[in-house]
Amino acid sequence: MTRTAGVVGGSGFTGGELLRLLDGHPEFEPVQATSRSYTNKTVGNVHPNLRHLDLRFSDPEDLESVDVLFTATPHGVSMGQIDEFRDAADTVVDLSADFRLPSEDYYDDWYDGHERPELLAEAEYALPELNRENLAGADLIAAGGCNATATICGLLPLYEHGVLSGDERLVVDVKVGSSEGGATGSKASHHAERSGIVRPYAPTGHRHEAEIEAYLGASVSFTVHAVDMIRGASATIHAFPGERVTKGDLWGAYREQYDDEPFVRMASGGGDVYRYPEPKSVAGSNFAEVGFELDPRNGRIVVFSAIDNMMKGSAGQAVHAANLALGLEETAGLEFTGFHPVGAP
Amino acid sequence: MTRTAGVVGGSGFTGGELLRLLDGHPEFEPVQATSRSYTNKTVGNVHPNLRHLDLRFSDPEDLESVDVLFTATPHGVSMGQIDEFRDAADTVVDLSADFRLPSEDYYDDWYDGHERPELLAEAEYALPELNRENLAGADLIAAGGCNATATICGLLPLYEHGVLSGDERLVVDVKVGSSEGGATGSKASHHAERSGIVRPYAPTGHRHEAEIEAYLGASVSFTVHAVDMIRGASATIHAFPGERVTKGDLWGAYREQYDDEPFVRMASGGGDVYRYPEPKSVAGSNFAEVGFELDPRNGRIVVFSAIDNMMKGSAGQAVHAANLALGLEETAGLEFTGFHPVGAP
Amino acid sequence: MTRTAGVVGGSGFTGGELLRLLDGHPEFEPVQATSRSYTNKTVGNVHPNLRHLDLRFSDPEDLESVDVLFTATPHGVSMGQIDEFRDAADTVVDLSADFRLPSEDYYDDWYDGHERPELLAEAEYALPELNRENLAGADLIAAGGCNATATICGLLPLYEHGVLSGDERLVVDVKVGSSEGGATGSKASHHAERSGIVRPYAPTGHRHEAEIEAYLGASVSFTVHAVDMIRGASATIHAFPGERVTKGDLWGAYREQYDDEPFVRMASGGGDVYRYPEPKSVAGSNFAEVGFELDPRNGRIVVFSAIDNMMKGSAGQAVHAANLALGLEETAGLEFTGFHPVGAP
Amino acid sequence: MTRTAGVVGGSGFTGGELLRLLDGHPEFEPVQATSRSYTNKTVGNVHPNLRHLDLRFSDPEDLESVDVLFTATPHGVSMGQIDEFRDAADTVVDLSADFRLPSEDYYDDWYDGHERPELLAEAEYALPELNRENLAGADLIAAGGCNATATICGLLPLYEHGVLSGDERLVVDVKVGSSEGGATGSKASHHAERSGIVRPYAPTGHRHEAEIEAYLGASVSFTVHAVDMIRGASATIHAFPGERVTKGDLWGAYREQYDDEPFVRMASGGGDVYRYPEPKSVAGSNFAEVGFELDPRNGRIVVFSAIDNMMKGSAGQAVHAANLALGLEETAGLEFTGFHPVGAP
Repeated sequence: MTRTAGVVGGSGFTGGELLRLLDGHPEFEPVQATSRSYTNKTVGNVHPNLRHLDLRFSDPEDLESVDVLFTATPHGVSMGQIDEFRDAADTVVDLSADFRLPSEDYYDDWYDGHERPELLAEAEYALPELNRENLAGADLIAAGGCNATATICGLLPLYEHGVLSGDERLVVDVKVGSSEGGATGSKASHHAERSGIVRPYAPTGHRHEAEIEAYLGASVSFTVHAVDMIRGASATIHAFPGERVTKGDLWGAYREQYDDEPFVRMASGGGDVYRYPEPKSVAGSNFAEVGFELDPRNGRIVVFSAIDNMMKGSAGQAVHAANLALGLEETAGLEFTGFHPVGAP
Repeated sequence: MTRTAGVVGGSGFTGGELLRLLDGHPEFEPVQATSRSYTNKTVGNVHPNLRHLDLRFSDPEDLESVDVLFTATPHGVSMGQIDEFRDAADTVVDLSADFRLPSEDYYDDWYDGHERPELLAEAEYALPELNRENLAGADLIAAGGCNATATICGLLPLYEHGVLSGDERLVVDVKVGSSEGGATGSKASHHAERSGIVRPYAPTGHRHEAEIEAYLGASVSFTVHAVDMIRGASATIHAFPGERVTKGDLWGAYREQYDDEPFVRMASGGGDVYRYPEPKSVAGSNFAEVGFELDPRNGRIVVFSAIDNMMKGSAGQAVHAANLALGLEETAGLEFTGFHPVGAP
Repeated sequence: MTRTAGVVGGSGFTGGELLRLLDGHPEFEPVQATSRSYTNKTVGNVHPNLRHLDLRFSDPEDLESVDVLFTATPHGVSMGQIDEFRDAADTVVDLSADFRLPSEDYYDDWYDGHERPELLAEAEYALPELNRENLAGADLIAAGGCNATATICGLLPLYEHGVLSGDERLVVDVKVGSSEGGATGSKASHHAERSGIVRPYAPTGHRHEAEIEAYLGASVSFTVHAVDMIRGASATIHAFPGERVTKGDLWGAYREQYDDEPFVRMASGGGDVYRYPEPKSVAGSNFAEVGFELDPRNGRIVVFSAIDNMMKGSAGQAVHAANLALGLEETAGLEFTGFHPVGAP
Repeated sequence: MTRTAGVVGGSGFTGGELLRLLDGHPEFEPVQATSRSYTNKTVGNVHPNLRHLDLRFSDPEDLESVDVLFTATPHGVSMGQIDEFRDAADTVVDLSADFRLPSEDYYDDWYDGHERPELLAEAEYALPELNRENLAGADLIAAGGCNATATICGLLPLYEHGVLSGDERLVVDVKVGSSEGGATGSKASHHAERSGIVRPYAPTGHRHEAEIEAYLGASVSFTVHAVDMIRGASATIHAFPGERVTKGDLWGAYREQYDDEPFVRMASGGGDVYRYPEPKSVAGSNFAEVGFELDPRNGRIVVFSAIDNMMKGSAGQAVHAANLALGLEETAGLEFTGFHPVGAP
């Protein structure tokens, strides 16, 4: 039984990735993609990898009824249209920041005034590694932020297994690619300005800190740099645990946490060229790669976590959560394992 | 019924891509990958995208019997081991240049002395768009050169439909990525030397000219430039037909030739940013994208053809041919359509 | 005696490069840079390499009197303001396409209606290798197009020394970087869309053909591809001379033409990694690098010519011409030789 | 009066950069460049930007007497040949790690057994911002490590002006380009493996920590990532001072420290696209760019420091120190201010 799926905001980067995943999914069929700017144009007009797809963008006003609706709108839009979205579909997966935080308090701390704060507690955070049990049957799901996702995947075993308590001050240095800023052209995203950079674009106060604190109880000092890649987010986390830990302790925590997770892969010191997690290793896939190293000089744990921000960091995570919500095979449509060699990709 | 498959030369770029395709293929199971340098190491040690794969490289001397054997060895190696390869498998697909040319005359013109010239006529050229009818049941198949493949895909309709006769002098300007030179590090392939380049690396006398002449009857003036991408080959072909042609003539020829081809996609003037074939649009996929433009000032036809050299230009083409040889679904294991946005990838 | 210099359009890429050259020039002092969007902002606000410069953008309406005025405005603007520009300075060097072509006939063939056609014959083409004798004392100078400059530098010796007669049909395949499209952000110039590309952006009808025909008498079939670099234009020219030529003939022609030229450098087959002209080798410098190869199979000459489009292709050429116009040392302020290793740069 | 200069190890990246600087220097003349692999080849054969230079590599055994000798040899070589070097020149500037640390204790902690430990105290650390007063007349100078240089430039004002005391635990996350690993090709430096990466290559225990501790008294937790650029090192430093500081305190410390420094430039929050220090902004120049931000949530200071590792991080710093040692104009030969736009470069 095929489920129908719609994508609101189908001409953006995330919308295109959703359409690609839905097109290749054994259970979902993409029947609608909306775009104000490209109404009536074919999807392949914007996303050249989907030239074979027989689908045209439709006006966002004309929403069809579908089994599952993915909304990839700018922050602040979904909260105003959420009733309309939920009328159109039994299951809504929102990929904006609108429903990611668990309460109005958190939201107000980091954003400006929520229009529908009562829904914050109702929405389920999409990250299955953190929240699998609540996703089955969920009808309102909020995909996490990509940088938060990378960080949470890296840190989760340390909090779950008591290596960190929440009192430690963590430094998180994240490197991101140019797809993270969305598809709209600007001076800062111009190839001549954006190539070859190491650009501090959110030195302090990045909003993804909020999710990490809300869901892990971690206190993070977060800094994001834009580097020269397209897809990919890499989080390097520096933690100083209260008590010395061994590599064995860490391996134990990570293995116990992730051995059965279909989309988390360890990379920690082995390998030839690729010894630690790298965005390249997971590019195009829904994997998070995590690894760590111990600094014997100062008792520091350095954790590395790499994802494809378009996949595990947004569209892939959303489809993963939708699979769980609808009771499908968890990995359906997400089996792609990545390339080698590969660019950004 | 799963077919067993082996890869000789599994630690190189092409070998890794074959293993990825075989791993994701519904009918093939990769049971052996040989590598002299990495014997007993896991495949994931070299190819980080295959970290999940439970397979170790084995010594090339210990060849197992398989249904199909893919040989990704340096040029000149296969011809010396071909009997051994054919003993190990009913179907051998060779990805080197050893069996690509149709006769000893052609071979001697471009290479040095073939050890088994009698097999040149026996081997089938793998490109299905050119040679589909002879691939069913073939037991020795030779994958084409990547630059030749891109050029042939661009030109085929013009020769098949009489737009070009073979008397014209064609200029072919090809741009290639860094995966084309193989995985071995060198000064020329060093990132600091290879990034941001437009480097004429085969100004004249490129051996892929031979295939184009042999299979199309075309006389080509070929020049290859290395540019800053990893995967991808893009051929721009400048032709001056004896008689003026219209865009309608060209559309007719290309559509008739390619409308039913599962792995050729037209891109010719439409689209938003992506108006013509580009390696990015097909990166990771088995598609060739072809398109053209007419220059009214001088009657020139400009043809563009873009492929992923690791896919349509080698490993994908090889699996495509193997599917046909073994009577499987032609597109099996090759359905991936590419990404947007994407790097090289 | 320092000469004062002004730049109209100082916040664009070409304007910034002019300001950098003028700042480092022993004889010129940049006293004004206009910018409508950045009026009153410091020059370093836009061009981070000029943070040390004590100069603010001024309103384009308030033009100061200077010795030499460089106008880096969009095409079509200079022709309307040229009287104002010439009132402000004894010497005007225009970097747009407005005064590049020698006559109204040429202009009308490629552009739409010139407002001041009588000035086309008066303006001097800035390329010293072609027009040095007329630049001394010139008061209206038009910098050439970057792609035309690369092509002309490559072809000039062949026409001057009778290797080509003008009857041959030349194919010119040009690769350009992302600075060529200017500083304004757009969807096509977005890093995620523009990285790793081989994109045919002017398959036919590129306007720089006009200059090449006008000044060399050559008939060129021109195709331009955007590739992944920032600065740089590389022209590969395929010519089939009426009579066979030898490498000795070619070396003779190029040496005679260029041995005394301070900004043309031969690169033809020698060298370690860098055997032919490449944009990387000249990045940041005012050099054109030229080289060639002969194809014995078909009598083809392949000529390679590489420049930094921001230097030899625009700002550097303009300063070079201004040096000659004002009777200064020809190479003043342009001695920088480039880097190794280097990115695009 | 021109000073003669020699470069030992002239075919490497650092050696080439030294030759470029010496060639353009008003007071130095490069009279010798040694290279075992390229003996008798022209310098331009390896460094295409120096094709105009009339100089051939000579055998390292045949050292000429010069005024100043720059030694760009692999770590561990200089200490064994230092007497020979000092016999050949009154002033030796070593660019390896051999003489960077102040004492044998430091050295043994991070490296293996020094052959000439008594020279460690004699050698002067080349960084003028830290050690200008001791460089005049120095006859043995040791250029600092590039990552250490970036970090020290960022931190120096905080230690000099009491914002940090040395008791704080600092996290330093450094991003470096591919020139840092030297010119020798390898699998890890292959363009296909090295492009588009965020690769943790020294998660812990990086030897440049030693210099930072030795010269600043800082306790640093250092992690280095390789990213997709060629030149450039960017250090992001996270510090938690014992007492809250204001932006005014920080501006005061940085201005007082650096206002008169010719090669340190502040970039802290202003600007259009380039708001903080970036390797692109200083590429090709001898500038260090430094800036900072305060995180009000947790009292964190985030310091950014960017250099061109080939310039301020090695060859430029060495020439700067040589200028001071020989009593020349401090900025001689180092005035280049960088490009915009620019790649890595």
